[in-house]
Amino acid sequence: MQTPQKIAVVGSGLVGTLLAIYLKKKGHTVHVFDRSPDIRTVEFSGRSINLVMSNRGWKTLRDIGLEDEIKKIGIPVDKRGIHLQDGTYTTQHYGKEGEAIYSLSRGILNRRMIDLAEEAGVEFFFNHKIWDVTLSTATLHIGESERGEWTDLQYDKVFGADGAFSRIRHRMQRQSMFDYSQEFMKIGYKELHIPANPDGTHKIDKNSLHIWPRGNFMLMALSNLDGSFTCTLFMPFEGENSFEQLKDEKALVEFFANYFPDTKEVIPDLVEDFFKNPKSYLVMMKCFPWTHNDKVALIGDSAHAIVPFYGHGMNAGFEDITILNEMIEKFGDDWEKIFREYEISRKPNADAIAELSFRNFMEMSSRTADQKFLLQKKIEKWFSDKHPGKWKPLYSRVTFSNQPYSEALAIGEFQNNIMEKVMQMPNIEEKWNSQEVEQKIIDLLKK
Amino acid sequence: MQTPQKIAVVGSGLVGTLLAIYLKKKGHTVHVFDRSPDIRTVEFSGRSINLVMSNRGWKTLRDIGLEDEIKKIGIPVDKRGIHLQDGTYTTQHYGKEGEAIYSLSRGILNRRMIDLAEEAGVEFFFNHKIWDVTLSTATLHIGESERGEWTDLQYDKVFGADGAFSRIRHRMQRQSMFDYSQEFMKIGYKELHIPANPDGTHKIDKNSLHIWPRGNFMLMALSNLDGSFTCTLFMPFEGENSFEQLKDEKALVEFFANYFPDTKEVIPDLVEDFFKNPKSYLVMMKCFPWTHNDKVALIGDSAHAIVPFYGHGMNAGFEDITILNEMIEKFGDDWEKIFREYEISRKPNADAIAELSFRNFMEMSSRTADQKFLLQKKIEKWFSDKHPGKWKPLYSRVTFSNQPYSEALAIGEFQNNIMEKVMQMPNIEEKWNSQEVEQKIIDLLKK
Repeated sequence: MQTPQKIAVVGSGLVGTLLAIYLKKKGHTVHVFDRSPDIRTVEFSGRSINLVMSNRGWKTLRDIGLEDEIKKIGIPVDKRGIHLQDGTYTTQHYGKEGEAIYSLSRGILNRRMIDLAEEAGVEFFFNHKIWDVTLSTATLHIGESERGEWTDLQYDKVFGADGAFSRIRHRMQRQSMFDYSQEFMKIGYKELHIPANPDGTHKIDKNSLHIWPRGNFMLMALSNLDGSFTCTLFMPFEGENSFEQLKDEKALVEFFANYFPDTKEVIPDLVEDFFKNPKSYLVMMKCFPWTHNDKVALIGDSAHAIVPFYGHGMNAGFEDITILNEMIEKFGDDWEKIFREYEISRKPNADAIAELSFRNFMEMSSRTADQKFLLQKKIEKWFSDKHPGKWKPLYSRVTFSNQPYSEALAIGEFQNNIMEKVMQMPNIEEKWNSQEVEQKIIDLLKK
Repeated sequence: MQTPQKIAVVGSGLVGTLLAIYLKKKGHTVHVFDRSPDIRTVEFSGRSINLVMSNRGWKTLRDIGLEDEIKKIGIPVDKRGIHLQDGTYTTQHYGKEGEAIYSLSRGILNRRMIDLAEEAGVEFFFNHKIWDVTLSTATLHIGESERGEWTDLQYDKVFGADGAFSRIRHRMQRQSMFDYSQEFMKIGYKELHIPANPDGTHKIDKNSLHIWPRGNFMLMALSNLDGSFTCTLFMPFEGENSFEQLKDEKALVEFFANYFPDTKEVIPDLVEDFFKNPKSYLVMMKCFPWTHNDKVALIGDSAHAIVPFYGHGMNAGFEDITILNEMIEKFGDDWEKIFREYEISRKPNADAIAELSFRNFMEMSSRTADQKFLLQKKIEKWFSDKHPGKWKPLYSRVTFSNQPYSEALAIGEFQNNIMEKVMQMPNIEEKWNSQEVEQKIIDLLKK
């Protein structure tokens, strides 16, 4: 057990709240600050993408005894449901029989987590704006406005779980030797909505992650408990098939009729939602170091903001907690060592999931509409079922295992090189599950 | 001629001051702000690397009639002087007969430029700290301290020439869709000093850029007008042969005796200078966009901070002014267009010189000590002298031409691939200036 400390967590999002529970259970006094009102008291914003919880996230919850509690508010999703423009609908299973990711509403999950944290004894301070931090003393500077009066609050440790535009990181960034990058995608997103049937059932299969892949843009839908779906339209801000072009009702309705004809029945409030909900940006943020002495540490999006195309933002953030907790158990009261080992362990894996997530946009928006790609996935699955010890597909490594992301990325590239060769075999369409293909893969694996 | 405007330039460094002269001569009211005291009234800091002015910088000065004035305070440097550890000394000319870069003391140059700007009618406001800017209205926020009282100063345009840690950019960085990265090198530097002889002459050849290449570290010296040299020791902060290891006088003196034996006579104040002068950091900074509507623009290091190993930080910044001026002449009062075309034109070239500069550390610190590399340079020079229309070495493109940096980089890579093949020819050491080699290069150029 550690010597009890007074710890501030900045940010009451998913990672901040779960971290607070972990720290509280270690015996510390834990205060969570958030500049926003209590999410339990406000309406949702209409700018959310539904979350998917996979193995890494569940592990972090399980280790602190919360897995069952949270599974109650999730819906298992075991496949992609792919809607082609010509009306064809195909499915592609994510993993083996019984393997699934879970669709969760960010708002509902966050509210539940805050309840659980309060039950555990964490104290929350909403509408408290942290403007700055003195790193050397873990002192928070708090006030109504950035240029107004500030109050100082002194802690033993400060965790910055305050997201991609973290104020805590903002201070660290002005230190020498702090590496930092932020890169905005040319693609943004907008939330849309498929309501439930009158009897509360789902209008389309709730156990699929629905994708309408259209090249440089796509629509996506993930189920909610109440029978509805949260949809997300991803598209470029400018150029062909972009937000810029969907300026009025006519352009929007024509666009959807042309590209997403099968959504007409299920998205009745398209026009209202589209022009009411904000257009949101996607940013990739990397930095290093993540900690300052034994005083301050970044965690989750504040340390590594990624794009949502692998569904791993929350999972990677929760895994930060798992690793931090491992270091706490290993090094006890030596917080400098805990912080150092935590950032060294996590940084390459954060970079790897950033890369995997970035690449996955092309997979989701283009390649899922490509027969050759679907065949490749089928071959991988077939070979993997026959030789589970020899082949685990990249998606399964990332989503259904705890293998470090950096290893998954490296092995994924090795496997991809093999599959490129396999796909070039003559008549692969006919003989994809032949002994010849099987032997070819085995030979290539030996190299 | 443009409609006269009220323009603020933030930063009284070399780029800010020269930009102010350009803008003043266009008929604008120009105010230059700097948080520091007037450099003409203070001692130099002991943390400077001498500058080299090359073709691009001279062009910008020439176009405004200042080339001759500034040449008076520069010393032409037409070659590298390479000091090997075994005492061997070799030279390597930078370009053709008569081509030279110019060594300039940053402080002396900056003082002279401020004098010239004042003569032109530019107004300077030293000890004025700009903390923030309102981008949409080009309003500067100025005050004694960041958290104290601020005064607002309203301009028609604001230029951020306030260096790698620009406050103006700091505000832009908090806008959506602003891409930004800062990366610190693992190598830092320290200023040292070779004094003049008692009679005011230089102790070593003043027309050479002296390098002591030692692999992952190096010493460099550039001449000053007063007979002295400004030396710069570049080395890693940590690890083998690092600043971390040179903790006391004994370690320092032994290190220099071992690696730089021929400096013993010429750097008499080694110990004093080393422990008095600060250890400085090197940062690479990239961002985009560089402008905000027709109100605010970044220029020089605030838009693209690079490492000093090609001697092009100031030259690239001055070239920004040349291009901005071209756009002003082309688009008159359409400042939005001027800013847009300026940033689009400059960004790829800023990225290219950043890359070239980064790579040049290895060339200076390691490859100049490598016989094979020196031979390669000799072959390039020999071929280029014979076929000036067919081959211009990369260094000459960057330093003795105004070819866009991005083109120079691309052609440099093409040429380098050719030279790699040439250097693999059997017995290249003997036949380097044979017809066979000449023909080989001509053939490879045709591909």
